Amino acid sequence: MNACIVCIGNELLSGYTADTNSRWLCEQLLGIGIPVKGVWLVPDDHQRIVQSLKQAEQHGQIILVTGGMGPTDDDITRPAVADFLNVPLEFKQELLDQFHTFFARMGRPMAEKNRVQAWIPKGCEILENPRGTAAGFWRQTQDLRVAVLPGVPAEMMYMFETQVLPRIQTSQADSIVQNAKVRCFGLGESDLAQRLGNLMQRGRNPLINTTCGAGEVILHISAMARDQADAAALIEKDKVLLRELLGDYIYGYEEETLASVVGGLLRQRRKKIAVAESCTGGLLCKMLTDCPGSSDYLLCGWITYSNSSKIVQLGVPEQTLSEYGAVSEQTARAMALGAAQKSGANVVLGVTGIAGPGGATDQKPVGLVYISVFYDGRCSVHEYRFPVANRTGIRQRAALTALNLARMQLRI
Amino acid sequence: MNACIVCIGNELLSGYTADTNSRWLCEQLLGIGIPVKGVWLVPDDHQRIVQSLKQAEQHGQIILVTGGMGPTDDDITRPAVADFLNVPLEFKQELLDQFHTFFARMGRPMAEKNRVQAWIPKGCEILENPRGTAAGFWRQTQDLRVAVLPGVPAEMMYMFETQVLPRIQTSQADSIVQNAKVRCFGLGESDLAQRLGNLMQRGRNPLINTTCGAGEVILHISAMARDQADAAALIEKDKVLLRELLGDYIYGYEEETLASVVGGLLRQRRKKIAVAESCTGGLLCKMLTDCPGSSDYLLCGWITYSNSSKIVQLGVPEQTLSEYGAVSEQTARAMALGAAQKSGANVVLGVTGIAGPGGATDQKPVGLVYISVFYDGRCSVHEYRFPVANRTGIRQRAALTALNLARMQLRI
Repeated sequence: MNACIVCIGNELLSGYTADTNSRWLCEQLLGIGIPVKGVWLVPDDHQRIVQSLKQAEQHGQIILVTGGMGPTDDDITRPAVADFLNVPLEFKQELLDQFHTFFARMGRPMAEKNRVQAWIPKGCEILENPRGTAAGFWRQTQDLRVAVLPGVPAEMMYMFETQVLPRIQTSQADSIVQNAKVRCFGLGESDLAQRLGNLMQRGRNPLINTTCGAGEVILHISAMARDQADAAALIEKDKVLLRELLGDYIYGYEEETLASVVGGLLRQRRKKIAVAESCTGGLLCKMLTDCPGSSDYLLCGWITYSNSSKIVQLGVPEQTLSEYGAVSEQTARAMALGAAQKSGANVVLGVTGIAGPGGATDQKPVGLVYISVFYDGRCSVHEYRFPVANRTGIRQRAALTALNLARMQLRI
Repeated sequence: MNACIVCIGNELLSGYTADTNSRWLCEQLLGIGIPVKGVWLVPDDHQRIVQSLKQAEQHGQIILVTGGMGPTDDDITRPAVADFLNVPLEFKQELLDQFHTFFARMGRPMAEKNRVQAWIPKGCEILENPRGTAAGFWRQTQDLRVAVLPGVPAEMMYMFETQVLPRIQTSQADSIVQNAKVRCFGLGESDLAQRLGNLMQRGRNPLINTTCGAGEVILHISAMARDQADAAALIEKDKVLLRELLGDYIYGYEEETLASVVGGLLRQRRKKIAVAESCTGGLLCKMLTDCPGSSDYLLCGWITYSNSSKIVQLGVPEQTLSEYGAVSEQTARAMALGAAQKSGANVVLGVTGIAGPGGATDQKPVGLVYISVFYDGRCSVHEYRFPVANRTGIRQRAALTALNLARMQLRI
């Protein structure tokens, strides 16, 4: 069984909005052994939509459609798909009722415009959208399955995972694909390729691909087999192999993040963490608190962006700042020690650096970052010169590196 | 004149590699007044490539092709395009010579495999690729212009700007397009559509499209005119109109963010800001520090995630927490006042809420957020019940709403 994807919206062709949906859907479909044979990005144009659906129909038994499901005049996916399916639109009172409840929850009246979203092609099953008024729909016939979803990624992803994926899987052939992710930090993609040798060659089963960003490399393992058990066994075998080859560079699996892994270790070891940030400006703490339940181990975070706040809030000695500067090993250490003393945490991360574009000197270039790790009374400071060219990249890299240092510390 | 884009490569359909080329090309083309009417992502498959080119030909007088130009066996774009153009491949000695020079510069011998890259469709002009051996080519006939470029973004962009753009412009009608963005916050997309009425109808010049996310709506204005000055005038006229219709919902233009706008206002008014976060866990401060130079106005941020840190770091009365709870109007107020007193800032934002998935009660559901705004000695607290279903969305929405409250306060 093959699939095709049709993404609808003028904004996708104007360069304003990147189409991230098709890539995500390709990954999901390949994950269950369904290759995508083509992606069409088309404008909000009735004829173009119908035509693209007809072209897609030639290459896949599954067509996924996203976008153009809103209440505004340029959202014409519903009538266009109805036209393609050769059925009229049908008013669904149940949807309108849901819209009213939805707006009631927000304490806002429903705009008249939203009414149009209650009309869907006759004979289609409704795909619920708890996050908005753009409901989707599903049509299954002998040789074609069509799922139509809104373009807003969060809504589309939720609806695909909860309502489209199950429908597709029940109607699927008996060779299955199982995927796994192995996540590494602190290793270049080429170093990694060298360590893996022929493990990454095409056609191997399981297939191993890599993607990378901000110091992180993700190994995507996809195993094809007759059933789940066989696929799982193949994946387990490769994971053992990878652990031998990569050791501590591996920080986690699947959807784990450095922050969630550090959180898990803190819980296990019954430790509490505090954070003192300068150049990362809250990003490090944001990553830690992205994890539900992080209040179990995160005590407090300080973003001491000004010198005065470093002195007053964390007790960094004025002399340390005047003598060595805010971006220095000494200040990084004083920040961690101050935060430890004020919070009573057993683990503290301190970050100070130059994220740029301004603030650099000959001795202290953009990308220079000091990270201090306080752990049960002892404090170490690590210097980095991140080659990354932009502010966002440097901040990202610094925050992840701090989390990785905490992981190595807690792992022991 | 219209354009279509065909991006070739199995990796684009596997989900591992994002197609960033088509978006960039759309932006470039619209920038010179050429709307893109469709994008095709197709696998390395001879028939599929030819077929997609034929479909593209129906909707544009310009076809841009990227990818599948390498020396390996799965790179079959050259023969496929030759087939579409109905011409044989032709060996170009000049290209082979360039390859030899290219490898000589790198001190490596040329691999035999690269030879194949010297074959391009008969009658095409060579598009030079100084950064690699994947040369491109250009074919112009009475009613069709085809540019074929490598998929590597850096190479593709360079070749497009230096060799394709000039060729297109010389063959172009004298109409240009200018774009602008108007950014709104706190207004639903459908409310907005109602306020705009027929301003959004298709075919209007300037054309107005909307995209939205996390409480933000962006209006994309694109004006078509004979020259830059006329286009600029059309856009200015619409901006005035939109300000009348949307007033304070408009927070900025082009690439401005709520954080950068708030930063600008703080600078103007010579005010300093501090932040006290609970549920947003650093995200609000992260947004503020995303802006270069934010150290000019950001004094300090506290992430008081635990009750004890709210008490110790911000002086929130223990009784307030026990009586009203950590997620309450009273605690939000105490957080802002504490942060103001400790930092000496004139503007303070405090955020406490339930981001979920855990921590909710009947009285306090997930999505309940209190935001306190301290401004020159006075403190107001605002209650929100965000309908968003997930932790990330609620945190995002809460942080942006806090910034918007600061904007409204500073605007006055």
